[in-house]
Amino acid sequence: MRFCLLLTPRGRSRTFRSMPIYAESLTSAHRLFLTDHFPGDGCLLSQEGMAAFSADASQERAMPWAVVRPENRGQIEELLKWADSERMPIYGRARGTGRVGNAVPTHGGVVVSMLGMNRILDVDENDFVAVVQPGVVTGDLQAACIDRKMMYPPDPASVKYSTLGGNVSTCAGGLKAVKYGVTRDWVMGLESVLPGGKVLRTGGRSHKNVVGLDLTRLFVGSNGKLGLVTEIIVKLIPLPETSASVLVGFSDLRSSMDGARAVFRSGVLPAACEFMDKVTIQAVRQVGDVPLAANAQAALLFMVDGSEAGVEAEVRQLVTALNESSPVSVEIGRGKDEEKIWAVRRTISPAAFRIRPNKFAEDISVPRGTVAEAVERAHQIGEECGLIVLCFGHLGDGNIHVNIMHDASVPDEVVRACRAKDAVFRLAIELGGTISGEHGTGLTKASFVSEQLSQEEIGLMTSIKQVFDPNSIMNPGKGW
Amino acid sequence: MRFCLLLTPRGRSRTFRSMPIYAESLTSAHRLFLTDHFPGDGCLLSQEGMAAFSADASQERAMPWAVVRPENRGQIEELLKWADSERMPIYGRARGTGRVGNAVPTHGGVVVSMLGMNRILDVDENDFVAVVQPGVVTGDLQAACIDRKMMYPPDPASVKYSTLGGNVSTCAGGLKAVKYGVTRDWVMGLESVLPGGKVLRTGGRSHKNVVGLDLTRLFVGSNGKLGLVTEIIVKLIPLPETSASVLVGFSDLRSSMDGARAVFRSGVLPAACEFMDKVTIQAVRQVGDVPLAANAQAALLFMVDGSEAGVEAEVRQLVTALNESSPVSVEIGRGKDEEKIWAVRRTISPAAFRIRPNKFAEDISVPRGTVAEAVERAHQIGEECGLIVLCFGHLGDGNIHVNIMHDASVPDEVVRACRAKDAVFRLAIELGGTISGEHGTGLTKASFVSEQLSQEEIGLMTSIKQVFDPNSIMNPGKGW
Repeated sequence: MRFCLLLTPRGRSRTFRSMPIYAESLTSAHRLFLTDHFPGDGCLLSQEGMAAFSADASQERAMPWAVVRPENRGQIEELLKWADSERMPIYGRARGTGRVGNAVPTHGGVVVSMLGMNRILDVDENDFVAVVQPGVVTGDLQAACIDRKMMYPPDPASVKYSTLGGNVSTCAGGLKAVKYGVTRDWVMGLESVLPGGKVLRTGGRSHKNVVGLDLTRLFVGSNGKLGLVTEIIVKLIPLPETSASVLVGFSDLRSSMDGARAVFRSGVLPAACEFMDKVTIQAVRQVGDVPLAANAQAALLFMVDGSEAGVEAEVRQLVTALNESSPVSVEIGRGKDEEKIWAVRRTISPAAFRIRPNKFAEDISVPRGTVAEAVERAHQIGEECGLIVLCFGHLGDGNIHVNIMHDASVPDEVVRACRAKDAVFRLAIELGGTISGEHGTGLTKASFVSEQLSQEEIGLMTSIKQVFDPNSIMNPGKGW
Repeated sequence: MRFCLLLTPRGRSRTFRSMPIYAESLTSAHRLFLTDHFPGDGCLLSQEGMAAFSADASQERAMPWAVVRPENRGQIEELLKWADSERMPIYGRARGTGRVGNAVPTHGGVVVSMLGMNRILDVDENDFVAVVQPGVVTGDLQAACIDRKMMYPPDPASVKYSTLGGNVSTCAGGLKAVKYGVTRDWVMGLESVLPGGKVLRTGGRSHKNVVGLDLTRLFVGSNGKLGLVTEIIVKLIPLPETSASVLVGFSDLRSSMDGARAVFRSGVLPAACEFMDKVTIQAVRQVGDVPLAANAQAALLFMVDGSEAGVEAEVRQLVTALNESSPVSVEIGRGKDEEKIWAVRRTISPAAFRIRPNKFAEDISVPRGTVAEAVERAHQIGEECGLIVLCFGHLGDGNIHVNIMHDASVPDEVVRACRAKDAVFRLAIELGGTISGEHGTGLTKASFVSEQLSQEEIGLMTSIKQVFDPNSIMNPGKGW
């Protein structure tokens, strides 16, 4: 994939005040500081120990000079004070489930694993607030909330593995964003440590707060480039009584889009509104039973949630609306059967690898009304490049996962896949969309950022970063 | 109220790099520029013409040197290029419904009325997006959406008068924030003109977007201190089929809080959850019929929305949950009767003025579980200061409107009211809350900001502002 980045350099240059200067290696004094402050297995210096911290789900890889595992904020304060004065690159990291290489330590330096700070500090049934450390797995927080009849809605596909810290860093989205929004919409307060070691507390336990600039949301999605988040306050809501899901097959793509449009126009706001194209349907059929008619060439997957009576009414309303678009099959899942429907969605990723061993899994997002055009043109791009392209994902947000399948061991296929990726990004921008709906840009899309953002925006972002991180030690080499 | 500000100076000083230097008056060259670029009634220079632009709903007042009324972005680009080079203070303004003096031109300079840019540019039923100019009245956008069976949920109490531009500037909240969030949660993209005249476009029509720092939400709630917003893209959702409302009386404050807690625990997420204390109930009884039992000493007002069947189910669920707390009366409003219930809420403001001719209408927000304590202690503060204090507002967000009633013509009452206001702000901060849930800090709370925000936060906000506005010409004298 590094090859791909070299293959497709973008034209416009970035705005730099002056190139930051970094430590060139770990000196013995550096080692002494780290082993002193992170005793025992709190500091890893061996190649074997550090190997697991060199990559993320993007499969990009670079070795750090050291890995530290803080267990409290005080250690992080000391670390960032030292790192700032030593110009030491700092790479915050949690479970490494990110798909764009954001956690990869491209400049060496120190990887800071936040997994030792994994306590749920509070789940408050009166304030409807949870307070967590960044290493808490999002699914664990969701479970703790469900125990108390509350819900933390954001649900990235990685919810069982990824952490709140990672979710805040990327502004994680997920299946339910169409109704409930993304991570940004649920974070009410943060505690962070800034380069230099100062602690910054923003926001709090109030559901409304408009005093000063919104530093809390500026941190959400900042990809560890402003500071290290050490505590997160999120908003909760009452747990809906129940949910139901509907899997609907259509004879073609355009009918499925008409169906989705009819559902939204009928007044239903689904908790999830997913989409699968014909290639995706073919792929999932190869790995198991799929409750879709044999002639289905596109499918929609809805979830509705609320009270028992409300959910029943919305399922009826939804099916009535869908019938206008002549679906070829309608499968309703309630209770245990609901899981069967979502199992289909979950098999997409393994099924795709039956087509080709490698994929570029991009997550463009386009205005919702242009999804049909985006999918058709993504297929065209695949044909032009002689590659199979799967499109599926969060139709409700216009957030399409475009999987460009290829074999990384065949150089020519990689070249064509890179060409396809480039064309898909250009397509997203042409349609008024974005090169990333939820993964971020990290390393793998860094060279495409200036295609989407203006010089003005990049200049402002760079200057804002300098306010927090004047020596640019936080996650250098990523994003804008 | 200026007297009040002098009376209660806060201890900590602010972070200034250097004091900005401003133009000291309008020269004849300045006048020529303005009358050239804003011909006819596009530029007001007479005292009579400018008087209406000197104040907002806070009743703070200061005369500008000129008022301009742009009709397109090009004029604003020219204006901000000129203003930056001339160090001319710029005060953006829409309907002037703000309650904290944010639009008041304290440093003279030029008021920019955005009311000439009042077109709804797009309401798109496929993208579920609206695009508006800043002078569009929020209620007018809501009506345009309803015509197309869609909803723009944020609904500040001023919805019939205030504009989207003003709502973005303050991050307006409102009745439905408990379910639908605040303005920040609905803004997807902005076009702004920065000091110096450059145009900045951020975000867009994609419902998800995580490329770079979130400049869009940084602008929401920035109170015109970063630039002038010229176009706003907001997210829409399907219009719920129906709604119903419930007005519930309780024999005391604590029972009403237990009732609200029981509703949230039952799994209902109401679209609105309002609260009135005993003083508020007494006040509204004096101006009309109130469908509450005679012995009600506290009241809750709920709205639920969704499908017909869902709403019916939630009303049943809500009433069952409330019954645990032994309400003294329950009035359900459906269809036309729903309006009668909300009429009670709307009479609070005029009713309050029967108690005393003036009020400090503060809008503290506290963690939801501490609302009972906050209200009890606000009453205590009133007693200690010999003043009547009304508490009502958005219980679901912990956002309580504390009205400190007084007679501004009696100097001693003003002194006591200022003391009470100071104590109410300290109370909010002590409870882990905020001095403003939705109005902002503007002029009237500027001296209290450093009680809530840390030096660290204020320093970062000041530096971020300097990135956008190095000469500090945008809305000087306000906020942090």
